[in-house]
Amino acid sequence: MQKHIEKIRVLFESLPYIRKFYNKTIVIKYGGSAMVEDALKKGFAQDVVLMKYVGINPVIVHGGGPQIAKLLSRLGKESRFVKGIRVTDEETMDIVEMVLGGKINNEIVGLINHYGGKAVGLSGKDAGFIKAKRIRIKGEEMGFAGDIESINPRVIKTLEESNFIPVIAPIGADEKGLSYNINADTVAGKVAGAIAAEKLILLTDVPGVLDRDKKLISMLSISEARSLIRKHVITEGMIPKVKCCADAVANGVNSAHIIDGRIEHAVLLEVFTDAGVGTVIKIKR
Amino acid sequence: MQKHIEKIRVLFESLPYIRKFYNKTIVIKYGGSAMVEDALKKGFAQDVVLMKYVGINPVIVHGGGPQIAKLLSRLGKESRFVKGIRVTDEETMDIVEMVLGGKINNEIVGLINHYGGKAVGLSGKDAGFIKAKRIRIKGEEMGFAGDIESINPRVIKTLEESNFIPVIAPIGADEKGLSYNINADTVAGKVAGAIAAEKLILLTDVPGVLDRDKKLISMLSISEARSLIRKHVITEGMIPKVKCCADAVANGVNSAHIIDGRIEHAVLLEVFTDAGVGTVIKIKR
Amino acid sequence: MQKHIEKIRVLFESLPYIRKFYNKTIVIKYGGSAMVEDALKKGFAQDVVLMKYVGINPVIVHGGGPQIAKLLSRLGKESRFVKGIRVTDEETMDIVEMVLGGKINNEIVGLINHYGGKAVGLSGKDAGFIKAKRIRIKGEEMGFAGDIESINPRVIKTLEESNFIPVIAPIGADEKGLSYNINADTVAGKVAGAIAAEKLILLTDVPGVLDRDKKLISMLSISEARSLIRKHVITEGMIPKVKCCADAVANGVNSAHIIDGRIEHAVLLEVFTDAGVGTVIKIKR
Amino acid sequence: MQKHIEKIRVLFESLPYIRKFYNKTIVIKYGGSAMVEDALKKGFAQDVVLMKYVGINPVIVHGGGPQIAKLLSRLGKESRFVKGIRVTDEETMDIVEMVLGGKINNEIVGLINHYGGKAVGLSGKDAGFIKAKRIRIKGEEMGFAGDIESINPRVIKTLEESNFIPVIAPIGADEKGLSYNINADTVAGKVAGAIAAEKLILLTDVPGVLDRDKKLISMLSISEARSLIRKHVITEGMIPKVKCCADAVANGVNSAHIIDGRIEHAVLLEVFTDAGVGTVIKIKR
Amino acid sequence: MQKHIEKIRVLFESLPYIRKFYNKTIVIKYGGSAMVEDALKKGFAQDVVLMKYVGINPVIVHGGGPQIAKLLSRLGKESRFVKGIRVTDEETMDIVEMVLGGKINNEIVGLINHYGGKAVGLSGKDAGFIKAKRIRIKGEEMGFAGDIESINPRVIKTLEESNFIPVIAPIGADEKGLSYNINADTVAGKVAGAIAAEKLILLTDVPGVLDRDKKLISMLSISEARSLIRKHVITEGMIPKVKCCADAVANGVNSAHIIDGRIEHAVLLEVFTDAGVGTVIKIKR
Amino acid sequence: MQKHIEKIRVLFESLPYIRKFYNKTIVIKYGGSAMVEDALKKGFAQDVVLMKYVGINPVIVHGGGPQIAKLLSRLGKESRFVKGIRVTDEETMDIVEMVLGGKINNEIVGLINHYGGKAVGLSGKDAGFIKAKRIRIKGEEMGFAGDIESINPRVIKTLEESNFIPVIAPIGADEKGLSYNINADTVAGKVAGAIAAEKLILLTDVPGVLDRDKKLISMLSISEARSLIRKHVITEGMIPKVKCCADAVANGVNSAHIIDGRIEHAVLLEVFTDAGVGTVIKIKR
Repeated sequence: MQKHIEKIRVLFESLPYIRKFYNKTIVIKYGGSAMVEDALKKGFAQDVVLMKYVGINPVIVHGGGPQIAKLLSRLGKESRFVKGIRVTDEETMDIVEMVLGGKINNEIVGLINHYGGKAVGLSGKDAGFIKAKRIRIKGEEMGFAGDIESINPRVIKTLEESNFIPVIAPIGADEKGLSYNINADTVAGKVAGAIAAEKLILLTDVPGVLDRDKKLISMLSISEARSLIRKHVITEGMIPKVKCCADAVANGVNSAHIIDGRIEHAVLLEVFTDAGVGTVIKIKR
Repeated sequence: MQKHIEKIRVLFESLPYIRKFYNKTIVIKYGGSAMVEDALKKGFAQDVVLMKYVGINPVIVHGGGPQIAKLLSRLGKESRFVKGIRVTDEETMDIVEMVLGGKINNEIVGLINHYGGKAVGLSGKDAGFIKAKRIRIKGEEMGFAGDIESINPRVIKTLEESNFIPVIAPIGADEKGLSYNINADTVAGKVAGAIAAEKLILLTDVPGVLDRDKKLISMLSISEARSLIRKHVITEGMIPKVKCCADAVANGVNSAHIIDGRIEHAVLLEVFTDAGVGTVIKIKR
Repeated sequence: MQKHIEKIRVLFESLPYIRKFYNKTIVIKYGGSAMVEDALKKGFAQDVVLMKYVGINPVIVHGGGPQIAKLLSRLGKESRFVKGIRVTDEETMDIVEMVLGGKINNEIVGLINHYGGKAVGLSGKDAGFIKAKRIRIKGEEMGFAGDIESINPRVIKTLEESNFIPVIAPIGADEKGLSYNINADTVAGKVAGAIAAEKLILLTDVPGVLDRDKKLISMLSISEARSLIRKHVITEGMIPKVKCCADAVANGVNSAHIIDGRIEHAVLLEVFTDAGVGTVIKIKR
Repeated sequence: MQKHIEKIRVLFESLPYIRKFYNKTIVIKYGGSAMVEDALKKGFAQDVVLMKYVGINPVIVHGGGPQIAKLLSRLGKESRFVKGIRVTDEETMDIVEMVLGGKINNEIVGLINHYGGKAVGLSGKDAGFIKAKRIRIKGEEMGFAGDIESINPRVIKTLEESNFIPVIAPIGADEKGLSYNINADTVAGKVAGAIAAEKLILLTDVPGVLDRDKKLISMLSISEARSLIRKHVITEGMIPKVKCCADAVANGVNSAHIIDGRIEHAVLLEVFTDAGVGTVIKIKR
Repeated sequence: MQKHIEKIRVLFESLPYIRKFYNKTIVIKYGGSAMVEDALKKGFAQDVVLMKYVGINPVIVHGGGPQIAKLLSRLGKESRFVKGIRVTDEETMDIVEMVLGGKINNEIVGLINHYGGKAVGLSGKDAGFIKAKRIRIKGEEMGFAGDIESINPRVIKTLEESNFIPVIAPIGADEKGLSYNINADTVAGKVAGAIAAEKLILLTDVPGVLDRDKKLISMLSISEARSLIRKHVITEGMIPKVKCCADAVANGVNSAHIIDGRIEHAVLLEVFTDAGVGTVIKIKR
Repeated sequence: MQKHIEKIRVLFESLPYIRKFYNKTIVIKYGGSAMVEDALKKGFAQDVVLMKYVGINPVIVHGGGPQIAKLLSRLGKESRFVKGIRVTDEETMDIVEMVLGGKINNEIVGLINHYGGKAVGLSGKDAGFIKAKRIRIKGEEMGFAGDIESINPRVIKTLEESNFIPVIAPIGADEKGLSYNINADTVAGKVAGAIAAEKLILLTDVPGVLDRDKKLISMLSISEARSLIRKHVITEGMIPKVKCCADAVANGVNSAHIIDGRIEHAVLLEVFTDAGVGTVIKIKR
């Protein structure tokens, strides 16, 4: 009996969080180890399903770089990267679409549904909801590496209102219908802005944003974030993540989080506790 | 961090229960110690609010015998009881209405709202939703001790659909508008039937239904329940409770529970765990 | 036949009033003799029901000073008054809650329902709709004599839209859940403002606002009303009533009326005729 | 003041009738003197508007024989009648359509709107809602004298639900789109059946159904009505009216009334009093 | 098979037009030869029905001068015209109402329904939707020749939303309920403005607006249109048509068209092709 | 001008078909040459978009055998077939999911959207809407070759009601979340039954069902279809197609069509003309 009572006691510690996020939308960029290790995968799916049941609306955006690389290598294709962005020729784009939109998206949908959710996979081509454009880098031919022109969130809202959980592959199309491979963080950030999400959460394989002494920074304002980039404290792969968070917050998202997806149930720990599992970017008041 | 992780783990143990009762209504007869001791009161209010937040619709019916007795005694009125039912003259009925409909109902509403709910008090006179009739006991003049003629659950449904939590005082009115004091277990049982509740829970000050050896019976079918009454295993005050549970189940309520309200969070323990905090009456399959 | 024709003729005289108030809300402070004498009580209930049937939405707020006094005296409690406001200790507040929220509220609900309405009793604690604060009078400890901090009219609207008639006991709660006894005129005025009522009607035991020669003043602008208070033409118990009317009109209520509740069907006479049964406070154009 | 109080008293005598017919539909065949004399016209329009305001839904069906005759005569056309039905050649049908659908329908619409209603004129050709067929009388060529094949009440319901008052000219069309002149009593009866009206009222220029001694019969069952026709107590023009009432009642209309339209406010006298202004045909219980 | 394939090919040429006008409203003034010749009538009805089926909402306004003249002459009445407007005495207004509201309106409704639509006839008196006023011309007594005071489009919207096709006779009423004969072009223009139509189409018996050399002008801006009137290039009967188009465009209608109704399917040719069947007045960009 | 008039004439020939299928759902199995050749692909997308615009709801189910084969061969995997069904090991299933759910599904979605639709891709794993089970063939290990256990069409309906066009990849999941490769014809047939479609259309690379003399059979009843299979007139690959059609019709689909997808606009030719582009299976009346 005691353990049951303990369990109930714990439930109540969650109530303030449930109330705070009731009927709100949380966009989660899913990727990295959390998408690979079984325990983390299961934990993630459970987090998503539990949130939905207690009245919070999760929207998932996933990446898939490693899986794409694997299939490309198996097919003997090699990619060139410019400023960290994969130059995407037509054949590569085909592979991207198959891996992201076919394999990974379906896998995540299946995972969430297995744990009791009603996930529905989307790519940005569905209902043309992500209008994409070619990335322009001077002197480079980037192929089908794309950026976002605009988002029409109606299909996401339609699914959300019928209690489905949208799972989004980061692919868009231009007006000619050509597909583009878009950075998943960017998609998550823009979607969060377009649907006025309460929270944006980026799952990463690092503890969060670190200062010069490699210590975790737990909170940043938009201007602090931008300043740290300018001062080269934030570097490399973390730059686009922090930018995307700052942009989302500037677009009305209440808070954006870069958290350590290698921790089991990292999402729920962020949403339902004050454990502090990473860095939050928000407007300081 | 470990305690946070533990907390999340516990949350997930609740998920199957949340899913099971999602969008269902649970009628709870609130009374006894649970209505007196501060820790139990707080626990009850939290249970109700948490259920509402995770998508379960609680409807509360309360009694108030001891408080009525207290005020009557203070006013120098003495009550006669026939078969455990208070003979209720006009002045007594006035007191009943004040204590149940005024003091206790408001107190419970206030308690639940204090913990974050949106409770709304009702008596069966509101919108005339409990049509009452005089209890007839041969050779006795029972006064305003009443029984239920019919229930019109529209006002309950209206409040429930707008996410309010109905808290019901067990008072009804006959067609002349005269008020009647009705047994709270009976009201809970009939309301559960009328709104097709998933569960009926009676909070008592005993561990549940006991067998001849004073050991808890954890499950009873309708016919077993009735048989135990006939065989005088179930006696006295437990008889109407068991009858009311059996009737509710016969009227379509999925399960009826007689549980020990002296245990903190008894309601959530019943709904969210398999702890077995009392006796369940249900159709055996 | 002639009397029937006469009856129809009379019906048509009401049509312009029905059209004028169609789908509008009228808040009525019910109290005084109208709450005591049988003929007046019946007349009031009929007025309320008829209005509802012809498409007007009545909202009732009631007082209950005399009944509270009666029970207090019976229990041997004595109250002290400061500036006409009852100093309300905890035990007194209990009595207030029982009498207002239990006895009187239920009685009015029963009365209206007996004449064919679908009344539902509320206190300001229901859904926490009246947030109260302690009245502060310098050098005095007023106890649970309260004032209104804010009104959340959603529960009133929910009931009104489902064709129920809200009957409100003038009790509120502060953030700790403590109950406060609030002046019923004040509640009526604030509720009228919060739900943008068309009319506020205060039933009193006087003919209306009188001038220095004790002659009825039939109309006052807000500034005239305030000026008469400053000049001590309006005195004592009439001051808060006139203030509350002036405030309601300032808050957007179209007209506020202080009428003589000792006249049978005073409410309908006000609403459906140009009989002039008291004083109206409105913006002069 | 006394007359005002008297007025209110009278209002209350109407309340039981308002409650009885609340949200119900009453189909009224409007014709005869009630459509000619100014006082009667005004009274009729007021009746209709008042009913709408107190929550009753009137649907008007009108005739127009005399006005048709007048224009035909002015144009030098003469009509032949077979069994009381006008043989309607193409030119006559044109006149019928202009007089009924143009002049009279518009006049009634204007009349009701002038007294505060929102009437909308319809003919059975609108949305093809009355499907007509040619009347067949052996050995006779009846032209465009028509009978009803079927009624599709959707357009009536659409208008009613938006609080408009439908005013129907008794014209139908066959599948080729040809117009037919239909008896207005028949249209009223069939429409009442098709929309499950509470009441059908036929306004006539006689006191109601008379017995052999020319005394008014106040109530008839369906079988009594049919028996009186067989026994030739009911004769001539009254036969189709009684048949149409009996059919309507057989089709589920609660009561059908043949009343004296020469009495001012005859409709309201029927609906709102027990004055007995004619003959009611209903199922006796 | 080849003809079938050809047919499909043609269907697709319409798709861009269907998409462009999807869910938009098009107000059509119907008159002239298109209302007289059988092939043109059939073509018009088919156009209207097809538009409704592919998701475009047509609203028809019709005239009827010739038919009015015919009946007036048959009845031996002669009309005087002032500036092209018929001086309308009471008897004439009666005829107008019968011909427009009875005969012609019903005929058009029947015609459209025969081809599969669900047309419902309206005059501006229905629900009082066209409030009219007397035309004032100095020194002249115009009788019931009216102009538009205001339009309340609710009844049109109610019918449109239930998928009915409104067919409007150009009659209005003043506040006394008196009927007025209004120019149909004017009604079409004002209705188009009041319901924020996408297009206004006036069917005429000329090819459109002609320049001094009698050559068709295919497009005009508002200011060009007004300038051509000032310069007497546009003369006589075309003046009010062009004015009404310019006003509609100034009131927010996207484009107004004066087209040649003598061409079969002129409306669809305008809406579904780039055939250029007349003159368009729109804001040049 | 003449060609425009011709065009309009042709439009009208489609009207009876538009009316017939208005608001109905048509399930189309898309595959074969129609999915390969550019002109056919474009024609198909246009057909789908046009249907949606004229109020018909298309639901697309696609296959993708050849593309799967191509990628498998490129990756050096070879498949074994048992009774025409691909034995699907885990790695193959991965490929299937990538090709069907990623590449082909996205391509079709993009194609339809390019021509103006709002297509949304689904696999049967989305919202778990196709519950699959392993195909059992005695003595064979079929791997992830699956059959349909049940269909939950809610996600299809949700999208359809918001005017999106569902495009379905024939993949399902069992209760463990394992993916299965299902025959696309089967999915189309079952989906058509589950959503009570009006029509099922299978696009093939043959003219339809042929008799022993290789002549097209234009219509078959369910029993005739089954008899022809028994008599080996229908053979090989056509057997499952005819069975699936017969089953769909037995499940309430009005008609099922096996048509020649090599004809441009085959779908519209079937739906909008009486060209007879294949074999229809329906209940003969």
